[in-house]
Amino acid sequence: MQEVDTVISRGRLLTSDEEDTIIHDGALAIDGNTIVGVGTSEELAERFSGRRVIDARDCLVMPGLINGHTHAAMTCFRGLADDMDLMDWLNNYIFPAEARNVDPELAYWGSALACAEMIQSGTTTFCDMYLFEDETAQVARQAGMRCLLGEGIFDFPSPSTQTPEDGLAYTRMLIEKWADDPLVNIAVEPHSLYTCSPPIIKKAKALADEYDIPFAVHLLENRGEMQQLEERFGTKAIPFLRELGCLDERFFAFHCVCMDEEDMKIFADHGCKVVHNPESNMKLASGIAPVASMLEHGIVVGLGTDGCASNNNLDMFDEMATAARLAKVERLDPTVLPAKTVTGMATRDGARVLGMGNIVGSLKRGMRADIIMIDLSRPHLTPIYDEYSHVVYAAGGSDVRTVMIDGRIVMEDRQLLTIDENEVMAKVREIAEKVKKSLET
Amino acid sequence: MQEVDTVISRGRLLTSDEEDTIIHDGALAIDGNTIVGVGTSEELAERFSGRRVIDARDCLVMPGLINGHTHAAMTCFRGLADDMDLMDWLNNYIFPAEARNVDPELAYWGSALACAEMIQSGTTTFCDMYLFEDETAQVARQAGMRCLLGEGIFDFPSPSTQTPEDGLAYTRMLIEKWADDPLVNIAVEPHSLYTCSPPIIKKAKALADEYDIPFAVHLLENRGEMQQLEERFGTKAIPFLRELGCLDERFFAFHCVCMDEEDMKIFADHGCKVVHNPESNMKLASGIAPVASMLEHGIVVGLGTDGCASNNNLDMFDEMATAARLAKVERLDPTVLPAKTVTGMATRDGARVLGMGNIVGSLKRGMRADIIMIDLSRPHLTPIYDEYSHVVYAAGGSDVRTVMIDGRIVMEDRQLLTIDENEVMAKVREIAEKVKKSLET
Repeated sequence: MQEVDTVISRGRLLTSDEEDTIIHDGALAIDGNTIVGVGTSEELAERFSGRRVIDARDCLVMPGLINGHTHAAMTCFRGLADDMDLMDWLNNYIFPAEARNVDPELAYWGSALACAEMIQSGTTTFCDMYLFEDETAQVARQAGMRCLLGEGIFDFPSPSTQTPEDGLAYTRMLIEKWADDPLVNIAVEPHSLYTCSPPIIKKAKALADEYDIPFAVHLLENRGEMQQLEERFGTKAIPFLRELGCLDERFFAFHCVCMDEEDMKIFADHGCKVVHNPESNMKLASGIAPVASMLEHGIVVGLGTDGCASNNNLDMFDEMATAARLAKVERLDPTVLPAKTVTGMATRDGARVLGMGNIVGSLKRGMRADIIMIDLSRPHLTPIYDEYSHVVYAAGGSDVRTVMIDGRIVMEDRQLLTIDENEVMAKVREIAEKVKKSLET
Repeated sequence: MQEVDTVISRGRLLTSDEEDTIIHDGALAIDGNTIVGVGTSEELAERFSGRRVIDARDCLVMPGLINGHTHAAMTCFRGLADDMDLMDWLNNYIFPAEARNVDPELAYWGSALACAEMIQSGTTTFCDMYLFEDETAQVARQAGMRCLLGEGIFDFPSPSTQTPEDGLAYTRMLIEKWADDPLVNIAVEPHSLYTCSPPIIKKAKALADEYDIPFAVHLLENRGEMQQLEERFGTKAIPFLRELGCLDERFFAFHCVCMDEEDMKIFADHGCKVVHNPESNMKLASGIAPVASMLEHGIVVGLGTDGCASNNNLDMFDEMATAARLAKVERLDPTVLPAKTVTGMATRDGARVLGMGNIVGSLKRGMRADIIMIDLSRPHLTPIYDEYSHVVYAAGGSDVRTVMIDGRIVMEDRQLLTIDENEVMAKVREIAEKVKKSLET
C-alpha cells in the first residue's frame, strides 16, 4: 500500500489517452505534481492510500483543457467594440486603446482576470502572446497555472518595446528568467508575417533554435492577409516560411483560415501544428479554417479562444462546441469532427501543439496532475449516454467544480484558491474607466 | 405613493423596447403579473413602495428569453447519438428510441427537465412541438413557465396518435382545455410538408383560423428536403404554401435554411415569421440560414435551440452567440447581426414570432413581468463597456441569478422554486436506462 498526497475516486474518468480510455468507476492517485496511478476505484483502493481523498461521485474527471491561443491581458478590452469592420475596429478602438493604456499594470491585472476566468472554466494550460509577458508569467505563477508565453514582436514600436530587437531581447530575458520554472514556459512569438520583416522572423527562429523552444506566429487569418503576403513575397506565405527555414516540429501557427492543399501538405511534412480559433474567426468574419482537411492531412490541431476583444470569453467548452458544429456545416457533413476528436483537440492534441504532449493532456501514469472535475448532477447534463457528447455539446465552463494543476488544487467547489477574484475585478474595472476616458479625447 | 408587490431597483436595465432603452441605475415596479413602472431607481422610489424589494446591484435586468423552437421532452435523448449521417441517426437511433419509449410519462418528465434547464438559463417562454403535449402543458403550468405548445401532426402513426385526424383532434382538445390559461397557449403544428399531406396541412390551417391562433411547421431545413418538396409539388415549397392559403401573420416556420430571394419576399409580404436554430443547423450539417437577408427583407426572426437530440442543450445565450457569429462568417462581414439585433431576436422579436409581442419580450409598463437578472460580478463579465455585447458574446445561461415569470419568482439566487430538480433528474435517469435497453434489443 503506497501513501500518496491525493486519491480521487468514484468518478467517470475520461483519460484522453491514446486509446481514449473511459473508466466508469474510476480513480486517480496523485503524488507531488504527478499522476502515479490510474484505474478503477477498486483497483486503486488496494494499491494507494491518499492523505487527501476526493469523492468524485457524479463527476466527470478529465485532463485540464489547453487553451492554445490567448492574449490574456486583453480581458481589459472585453466588449470595448464589436460588430465592426475590421479596420474601423482596429484603427479606431483596439490600437488606440492599447497605445494609450497598455502598461505593466494593465498586463498584470488583465492577465490575473484571464487566469481567474480560465481556471473557472476548466483551462489549466494556456499559450499567450501579448505585451509585458513577464507580468503574465508572474500572474500565472501566483495563480498556479501552466503556460507557454511569448512577447509579441513587431517591426514597429509597441507599448513594451521600441524596436523588434528590443522584442527579441525581452524574449531572451524571459527565457533566461523562467528557465527552471515548473509552470512557466517561454516561446518565441513574432506577431505575424505582416508585422515582422523576414530578417526579424529569421532572428526570432534562431533564438528559438538556440534554446530549443517553440516558435509561433499568427498566420493566414483571412483572405486580405493572404493576398497581402503573396504580393509582398511573390510567393505564398507557407512556402516562404519554408524558405526562411522556419518550419519544423517546434513551429505552430494561430488561425490558418486560408490554407490550401499544398500548404497543408507542407505543414504535415514538417510536423508543424495549428491552433484553431473558430469563435474569433467567426466574429471577425475571417472565414472558416479547413480543420477537417488539416486532420485528414495528419496535422495536429489544437483549439484556442483568441483574446477577449474578439471572442469575448475564454471558455474552452464553448470553443469545443463551436469547432465541432462549424466544421460540420462547412462540409455539410455531420460526421466530421466528432465529439471525441474535438475533446482530443482541447486536451491531448493541444498539449502536443505546445510541445507539452509528454507532460499534460492525458490522465496517464507519469503525467503531471492537471485535472478537472465536472459536476454531472445538473439538469442540462442529464441524462448521460456518452461522455464526449456532454463535454463538447452540453457542458459549459461553469460546470467545472474543481481544478488541480501540477498536483495543487487551484479551485475547489467553484472557489478560487489562488486568486482574489474580487480584488482583480475591482482593479480591472478601474483600468476600464481609464480606457473609456482615453478613447473620448 | 403606490404600494405594489415587488420593486426591483439599482440594476442595469436592458429594456429591449422599440427604442432599445438602457437605464443604468434602473428600477421596475411589478404588481400582480404586470410591470406597472419602469424608470430610474430614484424616479420609482418616489412613486412606488414594494412589499418586496429586490436589490439588483451588479445585475443586468432584462426581459426573459424566448426560445422559439424546442422539443422539450427530447431532453431524455440528449447525447443518445451524435455526429452521424442524418438518415443513420434518425432511422437507427432517434426514431426507434421514440417509437419504443415515448409515452405520457416520458413526455412529462422530459418536459420537466427541459423547464428546469430553461429557467436556469434565463428562458421564460418556449414554443414546443412534440408528442403528448398535454403533459408538457401541465409541467409548464406547474413550473410557472409561459409557453406556446402544439402537438406534432403526422400522416403516419406516432406514439400519441394513430392518424393525422387524431392529431388534429388532440390539438382541438388542447385548445379547448387550455383556453383561459394565463401561461399555456396552444398553436396548430403539423410537423412539416414532408410528413403531412396537403389536405392535412389545409385542415390544420382551418383549425388555426377557427380559433385565431398561431400555425407553425418545420420548413426547408436542408437541401434534401427542399428538393424532395419541389419534386412532389412541382413548385417550390413556399409558393405552394401560399397556394394552400397558409401564409399570413399567424404563420411561422422553424429553420428556413434554404430560403431564396423570392421565398423571403413572399414571407415578408404575408407577415410570416421565422425561428432560426443555428446550433442545430450546424450540428446536423443542414446549412446556414440566410438570416441577414431575412432581416433586410423585413421578416421578423426569432431564435430557438431545437431539441436536445440535435443541440444538445437549451441555453439561449449560447444560441445568441452562435447566431451572431455564424451570420458574420457566412457573409464575411463582421457588421451583420450586431449584438443589439441578436438580443432583440431572443426577446422582443421572439415574442412577436409567437404572437405574444404585446405581452412579453420587453420591459415596458403594461407588459407581463417576465424578467431575468444576470449577475455581472463575475470574472468573465468584467469589465463592462456595453450591455448587449455581454449578453450575446460573454454571458452564459449559468450567469442568470433570478427569474420571474408572470410576476412570480421561479428561480432565486440559482435555486429553482417551482421544480424539484433532483426528483426530475432521477426520473429522467431511469427513463434513459430504459431507452438504452430498448436500443440493445
